[in-house]
Amino acid sequence: MTAYDALMGFTRETMALAQVAGRLGWDQETMMPRGAAEQRAEEMAALESVLHARRTDPRVAEWLTEAEPIGDVATAQLRHIRRSFERAQKVPADLASALARTTSRAQGQWAQARADEDFAAFAPVLDEVLRLRRQEAQALAQGGDLYDALLDDYEPECKAADLQAMFDALRPHLVSLRAAALEKPAPQGLSGQFDAAQQMQLATLLAQAFGYDLDNGRLDKAVHPFSSGSGLDVRITTRTDERDPFNCIYSTIHEVGHACYEQNIDRAYLLSPLGQGVSMGVHESQSRIYENQLGRSRAFTGWLFGQMRDYFGDIGVSTEEAFYAAVNRLQNGFIRTEADEVQYNLHIMLRFDLERAMIAGDLSVSDLPAAWNDRFAADFGFQVDKPSNGCLQDVHWSVGLFGYFPTYSLGNVYAGCLHAALRKDVTNLDDALATGNTLPATDWLKDKLQTHGGLRNPQDTITHACGHPPSEKPLVDYLTAKFSDLYQL
Amino acid sequence: MTAYDALMGFTRETMALAQVAGRLGWDQETMMPRGAAEQRAEEMAALESVLHARRTDPRVAEWLTEAEPIGDVATAQLRHIRRSFERAQKVPADLASALARTTSRAQGQWAQARADEDFAAFAPVLDEVLRLRRQEAQALAQGGDLYDALLDDYEPECKAADLQAMFDALRPHLVSLRAAALEKPAPQGLSGQFDAAQQMQLATLLAQAFGYDLDNGRLDKAVHPFSSGSGLDVRITTRTDERDPFNCIYSTIHEVGHACYEQNIDRAYLLSPLGQGVSMGVHESQSRIYENQLGRSRAFTGWLFGQMRDYFGDIGVSTEEAFYAAVNRLQNGFIRTEADEVQYNLHIMLRFDLERAMIAGDLSVSDLPAAWNDRFAADFGFQVDKPSNGCLQDVHWSVGLFGYFPTYSLGNVYAGCLHAALRKDVTNLDDALATGNTLPATDWLKDKLQTHGGLRNPQDTITHACGHPPSEKPLVDYLTAKFSDLYQL
Repeated sequence: MTAYDALMGFTRETMALAQVAGRLGWDQETMMPRGAAEQRAEEMAALESVLHARRTDPRVAEWLTEAEPIGDVATAQLRHIRRSFERAQKVPADLASALARTTSRAQGQWAQARADEDFAAFAPVLDEVLRLRRQEAQALAQGGDLYDALLDDYEPECKAADLQAMFDALRPHLVSLRAAALEKPAPQGLSGQFDAAQQMQLATLLAQAFGYDLDNGRLDKAVHPFSSGSGLDVRITTRTDERDPFNCIYSTIHEVGHACYEQNIDRAYLLSPLGQGVSMGVHESQSRIYENQLGRSRAFTGWLFGQMRDYFGDIGVSTEEAFYAAVNRLQNGFIRTEADEVQYNLHIMLRFDLERAMIAGDLSVSDLPAAWNDRFAADFGFQVDKPSNGCLQDVHWSVGLFGYFPTYSLGNVYAGCLHAALRKDVTNLDDALATGNTLPATDWLKDKLQTHGGLRNPQDTITHACGHPPSEKPLVDYLTAKFSDLYQL
Repeated sequence: MTAYDALMGFTRETMALAQVAGRLGWDQETMMPRGAAEQRAEEMAALESVLHARRTDPRVAEWLTEAEPIGDVATAQLRHIRRSFERAQKVPADLASALARTTSRAQGQWAQARADEDFAAFAPVLDEVLRLRRQEAQALAQGGDLYDALLDDYEPECKAADLQAMFDALRPHLVSLRAAALEKPAPQGLSGQFDAAQQMQLATLLAQAFGYDLDNGRLDKAVHPFSSGSGLDVRITTRTDERDPFNCIYSTIHEVGHACYEQNIDRAYLLSPLGQGVSMGVHESQSRIYENQLGRSRAFTGWLFGQMRDYFGDIGVSTEEAFYAAVNRLQNGFIRTEADEVQYNLHIMLRFDLERAMIAGDLSVSDLPAAWNDRFAADFGFQVDKPSNGCLQDVHWSVGLFGYFPTYSLGNVYAGCLHAALRKDVTNLDDALATGNTLPATDWLKDKLQTHGGLRNPQDTITHACGHPPSEKPLVDYLTAKFSDLYQL
């Protein structure tokens, strides 16, 4: 057996175990009896410790030295394995385990603090998480920029400076679009009865309409919508709110975007480093293009309007155009996950700047609420009324996800690029979308991007799909055209 | 840290990983999308290989040498760990992995062969399973009896000769009881509409009535009823047949017996060798006493009759006594799992003798169908009509479970002993059972047996609970009294 084959065999087992850990996470959010939490924590810790030992196994270093890759695929596999091994080597085992323990505790404390509107109760553990993540960033950066070191986990080769330039280019367009739209009369929202069981039936219909394969996945309810797993077992969750069916509908389409990316990767890459989405930003480009550019398009919402009336009867709006306006209406709001397409990235910019300051040591946890609230008022023009609408709204920082937020905007920008290229290649896409048929779009995405998994780095993945490097311009053009038309600006 | 503490810490992680493997098994039977099977096989194999490496880790031998246990609990923990380590050491890794691969393949082939009524299609893989298990038995027995070596996996310290004596003592009583009962007019069976969703509601009610804690478990549907997991996460499954509600009812109560044993073990033993049921026979004693001595008692079926009428309306029998007779009626039948209390152990005797002959090399796989059918006609007085009613009915041999069947009868014998002791201690038990209250019985079982987990060896576990060593006499007395009364013999 060659060193390359030995390494790939070992890696395949490690990835299979990582899938098991992921499935335990899914179980925890969907099926686990509530009294099992304490035992589950030990099960997860045992599995994580096995994974950590494998990721830092000295044999990996030997195989990496000896392996002679033949062809692009083998070269890419080795690039991923080397990256992951070098990262794992840099972080001391006791720091990794302190982070795992602390973030697990912090997540519960965050949920409680958010329910109690009590930031002070959460501050000490967040402070500890921040301290450990800064320590980890120092270990990873080895003298370089701390934030870049963390960002690299989620978006390999991306730098904060690039993101800053992207945000600077986006901001004026978003701000002026918002100002213009909010001066116009607000479109009407939905009203009616939206039975939870019927929402789940509609969610299944939508998942299948976007190409999600239920033979290799399943759809369940959970508190937070998510997608979990790679390869032949990619599961999604959604939630229902009987007053607001859009929550279920667009959460489902969003997670289907993530899940289809995983399901559509070349089966030859199964349980190998290439067999998963290549980065968070590219992943988010898939969920966002499914959700927004396709799912919130005039053509698709025209079809969806008919479905809504079939499922729920009178929904409070009576034309396809009024439904399209309701789906896409701009509103003042505190919550990132409920934001419209125009304002969403403004929420991200706020978090990006605050978390960079925290990682740099320029913003302390105790000063975070005031900093958040000041910045929110400056960016959005009204005051945060309570912590759950402010800096306690997102789970991310509690679980140590510093450097993750900007990949959401990167995903939006990538989705803008992909959508422009898709429209160029598939000129009659709206005819299909108007009948609920997403296949011309999802097949294009599968062929151009999804099937390749981790073969290219994130930026090259987008470049390969679009035919040119990514920029924010297609997103700006798309948003300007869509909302100018919708609001008659 | 002492050697004992180090060993227990290591063992705790291994047991946590074993729980994860068990939960994957549960997922496979209940939740897994069907297209995921191939990937799941690799996930399970990776986890099994981690477990095997831990079970044979040379540090365990060192710790076992150095550990100085203090007290009964520590001594018992070491006894289990030594046993498991020595067993794992004796089996070469390539044999263990060949067994895992072959039995996984064989299970699918068995299911297909059963569906096709085609024993010949199954014979080659069964032959391979038998060959590998005999090889394993040779490695384990080290010159001793092969069948005893396999039996020891399921019922530590039990010998085939003991079981033979037990069966010899049981057989004449069972045969004569059956003969006498079958001469009498058969009691009426149920008829009516038994909606599957309502059966599941009743199953939940019954699970709770027998003390199953849904905060540390859950009840789902699966093709085969089973209980899975130990400690804080013990899940059960059941099934429904719209023509036969007893299938769901008594499968559920049976699995609840297994699950309550696991749930009721002293929490101090969590994720340690003492924290699981001590043997298959003792496990089966719990499922059987819940199902039969309690669940099929006149007092409890009186209460159940009322529930059945509430759930299903007219069920075809109109008195508590007629319902009791329907629950307990003796019938000719091919299928072990559907057998009544009298005939069940006759089905086991047939399998015990045939599998001993196979392991001894005295019966070949190709001769199995004829041997089964001849023996069945001799023992039951009528001819097997098709393989799915004969030697293809049970999954056990396909997955290598030779030596497992007799633990079912051992469980019945143990249940007989426990029931006699319980009745002596709790004289007014029927008053409670007649109101659907099982607590006086289940509390007694918890206190006398379940809470102790693996503290004592199987035989001593029963002796401790009953106050005297087990014998088959209480079971014979119970069956004779119950069926003489019911059939007016």
